[in-house]
Amino acid sequence: MSLVVVGSVAYDGLETPHGKVDRILGGSCTYISLAASFFTQAKIVGVVGDDFARTDIEFLKSRGIDLEGLERVPGKTFFWAGVYSADMNDRTTLVTDLNVFADFDPKLPEGYRSAPYLLLGNIQPALQRSVRAQMNGVRFVGGDTMNYWIRDYRDELLATIREWDFLLINDGEARMLAGEQNLRRAAARIMAMGPHTLVIKRGEYGAILFQGGDHFMAPGFLLEDVFDPTGAGDCFAGGFMGYLAGRGIDPRHKMDHRELRRAVIYGSVMGSFCCEKFGPDRFRDLSRAEIDARYREFKAFTEF
Amino acid sequence: MSLVVVGSVAYDGLETPHGKVDRILGGSCTYISLAASFFTQAKIVGVVGDDFARTDIEFLKSRGIDLEGLERVPGKTFFWAGVYSADMNDRTTLVTDLNVFADFDPKLPEGYRSAPYLLLGNIQPALQRSVRAQMNGVRFVGGDTMNYWIRDYRDELLATIREWDFLLINDGEARMLAGEQNLRRAAARIMAMGPHTLVIKRGEYGAILFQGGDHFMAPGFLLEDVFDPTGAGDCFAGGFMGYLAGRGIDPRHKMDHRELRRAVIYGSVMGSFCCEKFGPDRFRDLSRAEIDARYREFKAFTEF
Repeated sequence: MSLVVVGSVAYDGLETPHGKVDRILGGSCTYISLAASFFTQAKIVGVVGDDFARTDIEFLKSRGIDLEGLERVPGKTFFWAGVYSADMNDRTTLVTDLNVFADFDPKLPEGYRSAPYLLLGNIQPALQRSVRAQMNGVRFVGGDTMNYWIRDYRDELLATIREWDFLLINDGEARMLAGEQNLRRAAARIMAMGPHTLVIKRGEYGAILFQGGDHFMAPGFLLEDVFDPTGAGDCFAGGFMGYLAGRGIDPRHKMDHRELRRAVIYGSVMGSFCCEKFGPDRFRDLSRAEIDARYREFKAFTEF
Repeated sequence: MSLVVVGSVAYDGLETPHGKVDRILGGSCTYISLAASFFTQAKIVGVVGDDFARTDIEFLKSRGIDLEGLERVPGKTFFWAGVYSADMNDRTTLVTDLNVFADFDPKLPEGYRSAPYLLLGNIQPALQRSVRAQMNGVRFVGGDTMNYWIRDYRDELLATIREWDFLLINDGEARMLAGEQNLRRAAARIMAMGPHTLVIKRGEYGAILFQGGDHFMAPGFLLEDVFDPTGAGDCFAGGFMGYLAGRGIDPRHKMDHRELRRAVIYGSVMGSFCCEKFGPDRFRDLSRAEIDARYREFKAFTEF
């Protein structure tokens, strides 16, 4: 079943210990939809400037992504540049030029409104909320957020996630949102804010899924070379939601708990592939067979 | 089968966000042997001063631990004090009084020398090596080390671990010993130094077992309350080795790979219990049934 993805479409300048690229396709919407596209059809909502390259349009189209909701306006595409530390656990932002993204006001094409799955990338909570309101009969909705919205837009964020089925967030942000250091107790507090399903991402250490009184822990994939971690969290989200949408799963049903766990593993698989090349380049030649092989690897190194 | 454990026996002063104790039983040998005692007989080698309390002797005896190798000499027992940060991921040492431990020269009682399992807690590598040399026909030997020995006693440490079957080490120390940031490549380098089995501990994030070209990832247990993490790494070691010794397993045999994975989980289980009370107090009333129940919990929150 189809999945609507909202977020940024951008160009990034990236520097890691493995090299440097001045300008490469990026943005949360881009990474999410590319990762999801291996499981289901993604319909994106975003904005780009008139500098957005035809080759990038072609790349997204080649993955079957519906671009009807990708608005093109005069001006420049959102540009971000950053440099990673030697261990790649920290990064420093060098440039953030919002450009046309500063006035992003997402409007859903008619053909998107009845999609059963909605994934809201990290944008201002009020915008996420307005997109949610444009959907008719959405079955499973959720998204990501970040420290900036948690700290400075708390009420707006709380009103937004109250309507979500799930929240995907990293561990530091979960602690900040909950005002609680212990992850298990932080998770309980966040789930009292609305989402019945919570995924806490822990970077290289994997992810934890919370639902009801239950939790599931997925380790991070142990890559031999982390080339560039940009977008890995978004690819996790795309793999997670793409898998659920592709299988037509409604994770509120008790019987689908196993599928929800599998979705977390597929999210981890997509996040790990993302790190193997600069930007989203690994998705140019990735195959479903490689994805399933890595899924089986996860089984092999966690079973006891 | 019996397990010889060598390391420090100490008193600790501890302060965590949950409270403060001025003096409580501690030391690597203590934590390792207590954790191992739930699976097998531990025979300890250590030194204490004449201030070592009868009640602590009784506690160790009540767990069936063989104290023949626990030397009592004039002077004071090793004392360490530290305070943990609010998130308990860092601790600051306030006092390190080596006292009688400064002249520790481990001598194995005759009845220890033919034990098939040997676990060397974190002490000077030359002492670890001398203990190894006192054993006859040991079947499985390994231990722990720390940044200080890696940095300032490198050659001595390398000569020591060359004779070990396994090394238990935390992730920062593994990177330091290997001179390699990537854990997978660091593991390969360390295993070329001697040990055919390597366990990298990652604190709250669990542990990774490496053997041959294979690895196994165990998550950390998600405690609702981490009361005091002191000794958790040693309890991991004690649970790991205690389980192997109790089952009489020789992990060099290919068919025992599954048992080695189970040993890592039992290590994680014992590390998690250790954090539930101050010092080693949780082991006063812990039961094997509770241990096995937590083992099943690990299965439940990792299966997919």
